[in-house]
Amino acid sequence: MRLVTFEVTTPVGRFERLGALVHCEIVDLNAAFGACLLHSGHGDQAARLADVDAPPDLLRFLEMGSCGWEAAARGLDFAAKVRASGETVEGPRGEQLFYRPEAVRLLAPLPRPVSLRDFLTFEAHAKVGYGRRGEPIPEAWYRMPLYYKGNARSIVGPEADVLWPPYTRRLDYELELACVIGRRGRDIPVEEADRYLAGFTVMNDWSARDIQKGEMAARLGPAKGKDFATSLGPCLVTTDELDPRNLRMLARVNGEVWSEGNSGSSHWTFPQMIAHASMAETLYPGEVFGSGTVGGGCGLELDRWIQPGDVVELEIEGIGVLRNRVVKPS
Amino acid sequence: MRLVTFEVTTPVGRFERLGALVHCEIVDLNAAFGACLLHSGHGDQAARLADVDAPPDLLRFLEMGSCGWEAAARGLDFAAKVRASGETVEGPRGEQLFYRPEAVRLLAPLPRPVSLRDFLTFEAHAKVGYGRRGEPIPEAWYRMPLYYKGNARSIVGPEADVLWPPYTRRLDYELELACVIGRRGRDIPVEEADRYLAGFTVMNDWSARDIQKGEMAARLGPAKGKDFATSLGPCLVTTDELDPRNLRMLARVNGEVWSEGNSGSSHWTFPQMIAHASMAETLYPGEVFGSGTVGGGCGLELDRWIQPGDVVELEIEGIGVLRNRVVKPS
Repeated sequence: MRLVTFEVTTPVGRFERLGALVHCEIVDLNAAFGACLLHSGHGDQAARLADVDAPPDLLRFLEMGSCGWEAAARGLDFAAKVRASGETVEGPRGEQLFYRPEAVRLLAPLPRPVSLRDFLTFEAHAKVGYGRRGEPIPEAWYRMPLYYKGNARSIVGPEADVLWPPYTRRLDYELELACVIGRRGRDIPVEEADRYLAGFTVMNDWSARDIQKGEMAARLGPAKGKDFATSLGPCLVTTDELDPRNLRMLARVNGEVWSEGNSGSSHWTFPQMIAHASMAETLYPGEVFGSGTVGGGCGLELDRWIQPGDVVELEIEGIGVLRNRVVKPS
Repeated sequence: MRLVTFEVTTPVGRFERLGALVHCEIVDLNAAFGACLLHSGHGDQAARLADVDAPPDLLRFLEMGSCGWEAAARGLDFAAKVRASGETVEGPRGEQLFYRPEAVRLLAPLPRPVSLRDFLTFEAHAKVGYGRRGEPIPEAWYRMPLYYKGNARSIVGPEADVLWPPYTRRLDYELELACVIGRRGRDIPVEEADRYLAGFTVMNDWSARDIQKGEMAARLGPAKGKDFATSLGPCLVTTDELDPRNLRMLARVNGEVWSEGNSGSSHWTFPQMIAHASMAETLYPGEVFGSGTVGGGCGLELDRWIQPGDVVELEIEGIGVLRNRVVKPS
């Protein structure tokens, strides 16, 4: 399943909805499951039941666990039958079931994650980062999957503008694969960690290299160097449709390929990251884990620097393109 | 105002409520404001109006801004008149207005902060921390108030047990003053930053020193070294009742004073922290900023180490005592 969060503009305001990309259209999962219930005899209860099992918000949807996934599957099955029949069908409140992607605004699949952990799992990127300080990769890096925590309230969606923070002269992109946690858990064994994955998306961990340098010198991890923006999108691809250990990763700036890599070159895996983070700590649905930058996946490693107005596209095989324009506020 | 979040156990489940400590009792703010509205002729609407302006949850209360503060003040005023009259008065749903603190369970004033930033503002503590690595305090520390981001989902309340993470042999406390952000803002000038403060509480930034050491060596900041638990409490004291620049701070372990300091010895102030963090980044009501450890405010600086079963009490003048027992799961 390829889940998207999209915004529908109406005379009574803007609404965020949860959908699944099927062929070239978006199926509204709450509306489709509601319509399915309506047509299977649930009458007046259809809308309310659909709101519980298939809420139109990815975070609440994930919190429903297997009920949510089952409702989504039933909704999609029903939507496919509707498309095959050629009939026009509405949801129980008169909701539209299908949207053309170009008619709505795609948001980040999870616009407000519960938290954002960003790991540093690619040795090639770590080597360059520490190397610029004249340091080897620290032994702790080989001993455990290290991470810093980002700002889960600064999420930027696909196609949205990223504002250039006035305090930096060295803005950079970072090409990353990210997972979303789908189940609550604690002390998760590595061999069971796969079951806690809801799916994967593309992540751009925007970085202000000049201020970040001072922050990293002080060992507390990045703060103002990273927290102004993190892009996620365009969709969340569920684990059954993707092998996170072998995905081509690309970054283009104004159409020119700057970075190329493969997710399989990471030293640490997502199950290892989940097992490590969950030691003596509860993980919740809706937490996001970034892989860290793939080797060569940022301008810092290339000594090439983006400029205001540049369009940065990150593409990961099987997921899609996460595109943002960098805008300098006047 | 001294705000507390407390849990009431009833036959129909446990409820979290927001209260204010007045003399030796807790006034339920939602119930008191509801009763006030009921007695001023709002009849059937009293409960619903009280739920909007004085919601029984600190995060939603802060999000109401000045409406919330005004409702709380009116509720407290009404409660004082009730106490003076000697009458028995209930809220619009039959809620109890007053609680004895020992009859309820105090939770952290903000059990689920929007985020947790922890700064490093005390030079004495920074000197020891960097000094243990044979390093001077980095120049960035003098240039800007540095911070790392903690785990806002691992909050522990007053009197609650803190679980000893199995992966550490060096558990430590950290004596800190924390503020809660009360208003949304971005690019906040330092001279206006005071207006964004809702109040102050005591914070214990529990630390697992052995694993933290490896994490800090890798420059990404603490993760497993800090994220298992952060204590907040016992109450949130509003800014009109406290001068954060001159508060005695104490830590006791099993009744013995280990640490003593004063909040005024910090190099950076809360307004400076707010101004810095809000650059190109939106702050939201319910975010928590820790001051960092006051000089001498942790076992690491004293080379004294707590043991399973120890009771750690952090006390800050004008706020109160945050007490936790450390428990090693069997």
